[in-house]
Amino acid sequence: MMQLETNYPFKPIGRIHTPFTEKKGMPIQPSGAEGVAGSVTVFAEYQSGLSDLDGFSHIILLYVFNRSEGFSLKVVPFMDTEERGVFSTRAPRRPNPIGLSVVRLHRIEDGVLHIENVDILDGTPLLDIKPFVPEFDSQADVKVGWLEKSGRTVRRHRSDDRFSS
Amino acid sequence: MMQLETNYPFKPIGRIHTPFTEKKGMPIQPSGAEGVAGSVTVFAEYQSGLSDLDGFSHIILLYVFNRSEGFSLKVVPFMDTEERGVFSTRAPRRPNPIGLSVVRLHRIEDGVLHIENVDILDGTPLLDIKPFVPEFDSQADVKVGWLEKSGRTVRRHRSDDRFSS
Repeated sequence: MMQLETNYPFKPIGRIHTPFTEKKGMPIQPSGAEGVAGSVTVFAEYQSGLSDLDGFSHIILLYVFNRSEGFSLKVVPFMDTEERGVFSTRAPRRPNPIGLSVVRLHRIEDGVLHIENVDILDGTPLLDIKPFVPEFDSQADVKVGWLEKSGRTVRRHRSDDRFSS
Repeated sequence: MMQLETNYPFKPIGRIHTPFTEKKGMPIQPSGAEGVAGSVTVFAEYQSGLSDLDGFSHIILLYVFNRSEGFSLKVVPFMDTEERGVFSTRAPRRPNPIGLSVVRLHRIEDGVLHIENVDILDGTPLLDIKPFVPEFDSQADVKVGWLEKSGRTVRRHRSDDRFSS
């Protein structure tokens, strides 16, 4: 199959603020970041798109892993000791370094979203906000492959330096 | 706050194939697309990143809404009659037109993912694949704002032309 040549230039619409200024020691997923508070500042020109969002308890943040450089198709995930295909992991060094986190939304004030359960580095560029809707986003009868054994320990895991660039 | 000037040029890693060649009449979310089969072709140079993914029953696809042009900060969603802030909806005409769908993964053969519950237009450029992990991606005690009333009817809703560009 011919590869598409198009590049899609995405532009940050805001920035995410969290207590995590370094990769080392941060939680690896929101489930390991319970109670960690942060905020999302949406740039003025996009703030009118936030109306009606305050009725949602959870939101999906899409953002750029801007502290990662390049990518690897095989990675050893934090929760594992074996090399895995990058698309079977949530590791940041992906071909398109887009991160996804579901976080709790507490309130919105002057274009700032106050959020909780944040597993994101401070200063991360925000690409999109979507409402979390269980009917779309939750699934039953889920199998989680290599995570079957290690997934139960996510809450205790913290990042180390392995994905530093 | 100063706006970031950086643009992030994301490049398709594959393409999504579905029965939906037109926006009109397609399901608006995977929950309305139960049983609809499709496939994802991952370009050869990225296929080694697919290893270990076949253990997962559900995956998250991130893709480009490439049939939408421009964006609106206020939209009238398919499931509603009132204008809403675009970030409280899943509408395609977003500042960064990135789509997100959770789909069921049946099998992977020669770099082609066979998937089900597909609500995506045929030919859509793929940006990323992530494993769906309930511990990260499912939430309890969720409130869905303006969707509280209309969300229950998603399964019956089909797209119309309103987001055509």
